[in-house]
Amino acid sequence: MASSTKRTLAIILGAGPGTGAALAKAFAKTHGAVALLARNQDKLASLVAEVEQAGGEASPFTCDVTQPASVDEAFKNIKHKFPEHSVTAAIFNANSPLNPGPFLELKEDDLRPNVELNLYGAFRFSQKVLALLLEAGGGFYGISGATASVKGSAKFAAFAPSKGALRLFSQSLAREFGPQGVHVAHVVVDGIIDTERTRGWVGEPEDADSRIDAADLAQAFVYLSQQPKNCWTHEMDVRPAAEIF
Amino acid sequence: MASSTKRTLAIILGAGPGTGAALAKAFAKTHGAVALLARNQDKLASLVAEVEQAGGEASPFTCDVTQPASVDEAFKNIKHKFPEHSVTAAIFNANSPLNPGPFLELKEDDLRPNVELNLYGAFRFSQKVLALLLEAGGGFYGISGATASVKGSAKFAAFAPSKGALRLFSQSLAREFGPQGVHVAHVVVDGIIDTERTRGWVGEPEDADSRIDAADLAQAFVYLSQQPKNCWTHEMDVRPAAEIF
Amino acid sequence: MASSTKRTLAIILGAGPGTGAALAKAFAKTHGAVALLARNQDKLASLVAEVEQAGGEASPFTCDVTQPASVDEAFKNIKHKFPEHSVTAAIFNANSPLNPGPFLELKEDDLRPNVELNLYGAFRFSQKVLALLLEAGGGFYGISGATASVKGSAKFAAFAPSKGALRLFSQSLAREFGPQGVHVAHVVVDGIIDTERTRGWVGEPEDADSRIDAADLAQAFVYLSQQPKNCWTHEMDVRPAAEIF
Amino acid sequence: MASSTKRTLAIILGAGPGTGAALAKAFAKTHGAVALLARNQDKLASLVAEVEQAGGEASPFTCDVTQPASVDEAFKNIKHKFPEHSVTAAIFNANSPLNPGPFLELKEDDLRPNVELNLYGAFRFSQKVLALLLEAGGGFYGISGATASVKGSAKFAAFAPSKGALRLFSQSLAREFGPQGVHVAHVVVDGIIDTERTRGWVGEPEDADSRIDAADLAQAFVYLSQQPKNCWTHEMDVRPAAEIF
Repeated sequence: MASSTKRTLAIILGAGPGTGAALAKAFAKTHGAVALLARNQDKLASLVAEVEQAGGEASPFTCDVTQPASVDEAFKNIKHKFPEHSVTAAIFNANSPLNPGPFLELKEDDLRPNVELNLYGAFRFSQKVLALLLEAGGGFYGISGATASVKGSAKFAAFAPSKGALRLFSQSLAREFGPQGVHVAHVVVDGIIDTERTRGWVGEPEDADSRIDAADLAQAFVYLSQQPKNCWTHEMDVRPAAEIF
Repeated sequence: MASSTKRTLAIILGAGPGTGAALAKAFAKTHGAVALLARNQDKLASLVAEVEQAGGEASPFTCDVTQPASVDEAFKNIKHKFPEHSVTAAIFNANSPLNPGPFLELKEDDLRPNVELNLYGAFRFSQKVLALLLEAGGGFYGISGATASVKGSAKFAAFAPSKGALRLFSQSLAREFGPQGVHVAHVVVDGIIDTERTRGWVGEPEDADSRIDAADLAQAFVYLSQQPKNCWTHEMDVRPAAEIF
Repeated sequence: MASSTKRTLAIILGAGPGTGAALAKAFAKTHGAVALLARNQDKLASLVAEVEQAGGEASPFTCDVTQPASVDEAFKNIKHKFPEHSVTAAIFNANSPLNPGPFLELKEDDLRPNVELNLYGAFRFSQKVLALLLEAGGGFYGISGATASVKGSAKFAAFAPSKGALRLFSQSLAREFGPQGVHVAHVVVDGIIDTERTRGWVGEPEDADSRIDAADLAQAFVYLSQQPKNCWTHEMDVRPAAEIF
Repeated sequence: MASSTKRTLAIILGAGPGTGAALAKAFAKTHGAVALLARNQDKLASLVAEVEQAGGEASPFTCDVTQPASVDEAFKNIKHKFPEHSVTAAIFNANSPLNPGPFLELKEDDLRPNVELNLYGAFRFSQKVLALLLEAGGGFYGISGATASVKGSAKFAAFAPSKGALRLFSQSLAREFGPQGVHVAHVVVDGIIDTERTRGWVGEPEDADSRIDAADLAQAFVYLSQQPKNCWTHEMDVRPAAEIF
């Protein structure tokens, strides 16, 4: 039979509007098929439609990364849908809630979703995708960080610990899997990504360059995924020109 | 006549043998009474005896910091035992398991105890002690870190994330509570503390200075607790002279 | 009729074989004309030939960045040669000598060339190119760092200080000129770049991916130079997959 | 003949009013005799008087650390004055000028004093004191850093590079000389030290704790100098409680 060329698949977790959607579209253009994982089935459906309209191939997989069974199920479904594809890229881009506030007024429930996502969720998702990336003989695994990954600001005690954890987790994976051909990179997103949601919080941007454009951020991940093996970046920051840092 | 001098209390979590015991003895000498919190009642009893033998005042409080109810209970008991004391120092020195191993062989249960201790446990304990430290008009809160707090090494994916989290958590608290008079300091313990347990893992030390002496480490915390308000250290590393870093 | 389209120029300091040559070729392809600055006239000439052979436009400018007059002269010559070009990119990629050795055996002359290059030289070159970049309405300024920029290893007391200085210098420029439209980025090159010179030091590479390919490193600078203004990276590391870090 | 106990000497560079004076007084109390080095002979004389009034032993040595011959001369004089003392502590606490300003308005002469002090001066002084510390069988060498040692702020391009250099220099020395028994520690002074000079710049402090008290800062160095060999700190920050960081 015809084609012996194995096709490639990128698995993207956190495929909501904003960065997730931008990552989906970018990797569908540059990488191959994309498997989109998110909790919300409706949002997934409309994102798949967007990717297909742009000529890409995408499939939705409902997945709540805080639930082990849901992760197992999603990866079973991915395998079923793409039995012959090589998974050569994956992104962990889960949105977790800032839940800012004076520490003594925070509840454990403000911390919990961040821990569930950025520690347990990242752990589960990473085990799945790293096994697949090794099976494919190597590839790229990108992880979204934030200012809070490197600096614990006042009132961010519900959020910063989980992002700091995710950064050290990325480092540990990068050091273990790099020599095995898997490039793990952590991107410190230091600025506000311009989305409906963030406009709801902080209003319209003053000028075009004061907020991060999700499509441009996605290109940073694409760039990292294409770095040759002799020249890998394990951490980079990105921020708008006007951002104070 | 009733004494008008309010006495001071230090609350130390993680009061097992090794660093916990050394902290208990050191703060009992320099600070006032010490409330010792740990899960193991027997170890607590023998530690209290040690402190008392050295002329200090110590009380044991069974506390499993991973259980909210247990933390509530312990602090109720502390209040009952020391109704008039000012809490002017506290230490979070919980030992959590390294659980090293290739990432794909780790189980969520290898991660869990670290998360329960260094994220949820630290959160609970910190809310209790910070409220008391504010009530006392300020004081010192020390948090024990590790090499893994600042560097995610290969095979440490079960441990490093939680220590990285605890470090960013410390930073967030330091920035919020510093202006309110509470000095939060994070100590990066970079080296092996010489205890029965670590000798079991790595054998006898080659020479006296190649392992950290818990009593000397405790003095670092005492020093930090005594820094005047114009000259606070928020992070310091400690390691043996021979340690490679 | 005279063209109204203003052409662009990239100014690259340190245009020897290796990274300098690779940067020259890469920016000549993607950016416009390139002005190549180095001390050695012969090397410059052969590099210009290489760039032109590949269809690029390059001009050589003899420049010893450790001599103020030489820097003045070089920029006068650049202006004379390219009176109408907009300078929209610049790279500081000066090779300075490691001069490793036990500290007590080092001479001030081991430190001197690094200071002259990475402090004074960078200062002079940066004043020239930043003025031109501002004049052009903004642009990119890339600075080559090293492992020694972020970590002072034993025996590197002649080299690491100057690279640490260059990194903080980059940060200061990034913060001052970012809001004015100039993107200053520092690249931490953590690994051995595969050149004749490094093969002379450490022998042939074991495998293709254990040394950094200068052409791939140059692409990292090209990528940074093309980042849109809403999504700038100010620091990134690059290293081979096999590098221990 | 009588005493076989070798007496100890601390050598302190930068012994002006403020931190230098405080270090002199503190080490004269805790350490033994102190050799005070500074450019200004008159200030040295009055500082020696202060130390002696407080019951300490101090000797002045005029030294311009930017001049190799002056450094040689000073150490010859120290040897002559204290032929039998063991040098077991040294401090590099040279004040260098911030020279803040927009980068394009800075002159090389704004950079030069910082380079001369924090690179060449530190290099020279360190070679002298490290040789003496090794001769004494080990000891403590403290180095004063600043906020600018770890962060290059806008408008600090004349100052931050030299402080970043000094920090990496400290690290390199710490790693080389630690295993030989010399404890090299870098203190990141993050805040304004309350002196005549800083009051001249920024006015009277709002409250007692908003500026660093030089005497308290000196105690931080004393503490570091007394750390036992199994538990050394290589870097610590100090700042007022109210400082934003």
